[in-house]
Amino acid sequence: MEEVRLALIGYGNVAQGLTQILLDEGDKFARERGLRFLITAIADPLKGSAFNEDGLDLAGLLASVREHGVLRDIPGSSSPNWDALEMIQNSPADVVIELSYTNLLTGEPSTTYITEALRRKKHVITTNKGPIALHYDALEAIARLHGVSIGLEGTVMSGTPAMSLGTDLLAGAGIQRIQGILNGTTNYILTQMESGKSYAEALAEAQAQGYAEADPTGDVEGFDAAAKVAILSCLVLGKTIAFADIEREGITRLSVEDIELAKAQHRHWKLVGSLTLEDGQVKASVRPECLADDHPLARVGGVTNAIVFTTRLMGDVTLIGPGAGRLQTGYAIIQDLFSIYS
Amino acid sequence: MEEVRLALIGYGNVAQGLTQILLDEGDKFARERGLRFLITAIADPLKGSAFNEDGLDLAGLLASVREHGVLRDIPGSSSPNWDALEMIQNSPADVVIELSYTNLLTGEPSTTYITEALRRKKHVITTNKGPIALHYDALEAIARLHGVSIGLEGTVMSGTPAMSLGTDLLAGAGIQRIQGILNGTTNYILTQMESGKSYAEALAEAQAQGYAEADPTGDVEGFDAAAKVAILSCLVLGKTIAFADIEREGITRLSVEDIELAKAQHRHWKLVGSLTLEDGQVKASVRPECLADDHPLARVGGVTNAIVFTTRLMGDVTLIGPGAGRLQTGYAIIQDLFSIYS
Repeated sequence: MEEVRLALIGYGNVAQGLTQILLDEGDKFARERGLRFLITAIADPLKGSAFNEDGLDLAGLLASVREHGVLRDIPGSSSPNWDALEMIQNSPADVVIELSYTNLLTGEPSTTYITEALRRKKHVITTNKGPIALHYDALEAIARLHGVSIGLEGTVMSGTPAMSLGTDLLAGAGIQRIQGILNGTTNYILTQMESGKSYAEALAEAQAQGYAEADPTGDVEGFDAAAKVAILSCLVLGKTIAFADIEREGITRLSVEDIELAKAQHRHWKLVGSLTLEDGQVKASVRPECLADDHPLARVGGVTNAIVFTTRLMGDVTLIGPGAGRLQTGYAIIQDLFSIYS
Repeated sequence: MEEVRLALIGYGNVAQGLTQILLDEGDKFARERGLRFLITAIADPLKGSAFNEDGLDLAGLLASVREHGVLRDIPGSSSPNWDALEMIQNSPADVVIELSYTNLLTGEPSTTYITEALRRKKHVITTNKGPIALHYDALEAIARLHGVSIGLEGTVMSGTPAMSLGTDLLAGAGIQRIQGILNGTTNYILTQMESGKSYAEALAEAQAQGYAEADPTGDVEGFDAAAKVAILSCLVLGKTIAFADIEREGITRLSVEDIELAKAQHRHWKLVGSLTLEDGQVKASVRPECLADDHPLARVGGVTNAIVFTTRLMGDVTLIGPGAGRLQTGYAIIQDLFSIYS
C-alpha cells in the first residue's frame, strides 16, 4: 500500500467534493489500486488551515465546514495558521492540489503557488484555468527540471476526460480540428432561450440555479471558454497561443428572434470554442455558431459540455459529459492522481 | 529509440490499415514517443508469410497485396512458409498482433494463437471479439503469469477509445450502467429505414456498401453486439458473463411501421447493448429499444457507434465515434502499443 500525502490550497466546493469522494471511495481505491490518498494539510484564506501528517479526518472536515463555515476543531488536527505558501514550504505533502481563486488575466496567485510547489519537487494538480492557459510551457519546464508532474484534467470539462482523450488516446490519430461546448452556463442560457425565455430571463434562471455568477461577464462574453481553448491549443495541438489571438464573441448579442429563426430551420445556436490546424498554424475562436441539427454538438443541452476531435485516422470522435460540479471536478483530481501514480 | 518487433497473424484489412499508419506516421511516433514499430513477420493462411528481422518494407507489403493479392517478392524479405503457430514460435517478435478470422462461438483459432504467444512471453494485441468475450479471465491469468499484456481496445468500437474510457478513465467514478450502439451495420440499416427504406432494401444497401456480409446473421441478430456486451461486462464491470446470460433480440422483426410510429413520437429505434449493475449482479441485454429524442444514443446515425457510461460521481459520459474501418481499427492497435510501451 502506497500512501500519498495531499496538501490542498483552498477549501471550497471542489476541495469538499474531493474530500467526499475520498471518504466514500478511499477504501475501494486502496483495494483496487494499492493507493491510499491522505489529505494531510489545507490552507484556505477564509476558512483557515488544518494539518495532520497522518491524514486529516475527512468526515470531520466536511462537518466543520457545514456547521461552522470554517475549519475548526477537526479531530486530531493542528491549526498551524499557514497561508498557502507556508503550507507548501512546511507540510510533507507529495502532491499539492491548487484550488485557489485565480485571476484569468494574470493567473495569480495560483501560478506563484504552483511554481513554489514544483520547485520543492511536489507534484501539482490544478483545476485553475488561468495558470495553465497563460503559463503552461514555463510551468511544465519547471516540473520537468524537478522530476514531477502537473495534473490538469479538471481545467476543461471537469472530470469528463477531454484532456486525456486529446493529449493521450487520440494524440496519434492526427487531430486537425477541435470544437467544443466548453462553458455550461452559456449553454444553459441558450437552451433556456430555445424553450422561449428571453436572454435576461434565462440569465436570471442560471443565476438562481447557481450556474452563473452575479457578474456573468466571464461566462457570457466567452472568456472562460477562451481560456479552455488556449489550454487545448497548448496541450493537445502543441501550439501555445495568447488570449489576444483567440477571436472571441459572447452570447449577449443573440436575440430570441435569432434563436427562433434557427429553430425554424432545425438549427441550434451554440457558443463554440474552435481550434483548426492549417499548414501548421492554428486558428482559434470562441463565438456563437448556428449548427445544423446533425452536428455532434447541436443537441447538447443544458449545462452539459461536449467536445469533438476531428482526426485524420478516425474522423470525428465526440465526448459528452458534465463540465462542472463538486464531485465531477473532484473526480478530475482523482484521475490526475491515478495518472501520476500509475 | 526503442525498437518494437511486431508479428502479424492475418494480413487482411486491419493489418493493411496498421501497415499504412506505420508507413505514414512511423517517423512521427519515433520522434514523439521514442518508439519505432517494425513489422517483422506476417503469417496469413491465404496470402502467405513474410519475414525480415530488421523490419519488412511497408510500402512493399501494401503494393504486393494490391498487385498480387498475396505476399510475394517483398524487398529484403524471406518467405518462410510459416503458419501462425510456426511464426509465433520462430520469429523474434515482442508483440504478436492477432487478426485472424475467428469463430464467435469457440474463439478459435485465435484463442490458441494468443495462448501460445503469451506463453512465449510476447505481448498480444487482438481485435478479435471471440477470444476476449469467451476466455478473457483465463488469457489474462496466463499473461500475468508470464509478465506480458493483452491489448484489446479494437474489440469494441474500433479505435474509438471506449475500452480505455471504461477500464481506466472512468473506472473510479462508479460505473453503474453501460448502454451502447455497438454494431454499425444494424445502426446503418435502422438509419436507412428511418429515411423510408424497407428492411430488405436497407440490408441490400448495407451489403452493397460493404457494411454487411452476405450472411448478415451475426450483425442483424445481435450476436456481434452481444460479444461486445460480454467484453464490456468482464473488463469494465469485472463481471464475467456467458453469452447465454445475455438477453438477445436482433432487428429483423422491426417493421417500417414500427419505425414510422416512433418517428411520429420523436423517438428512434436503436439496437442497444445494455449492462446494468444492481446489488452486485449484472443484467445484460442486446435488443431494439425505442429511445426518446433526448437520449444520448437517439441521434447517432449511420455506421457510427456510441457508448454511454452512467456513473455515480459523474452522471452520464458519452463517447461517439467510428466502430469499424481499416485505419480506425488499425489505430486501436496503435493505442494498445502506446499503452504497453508507455
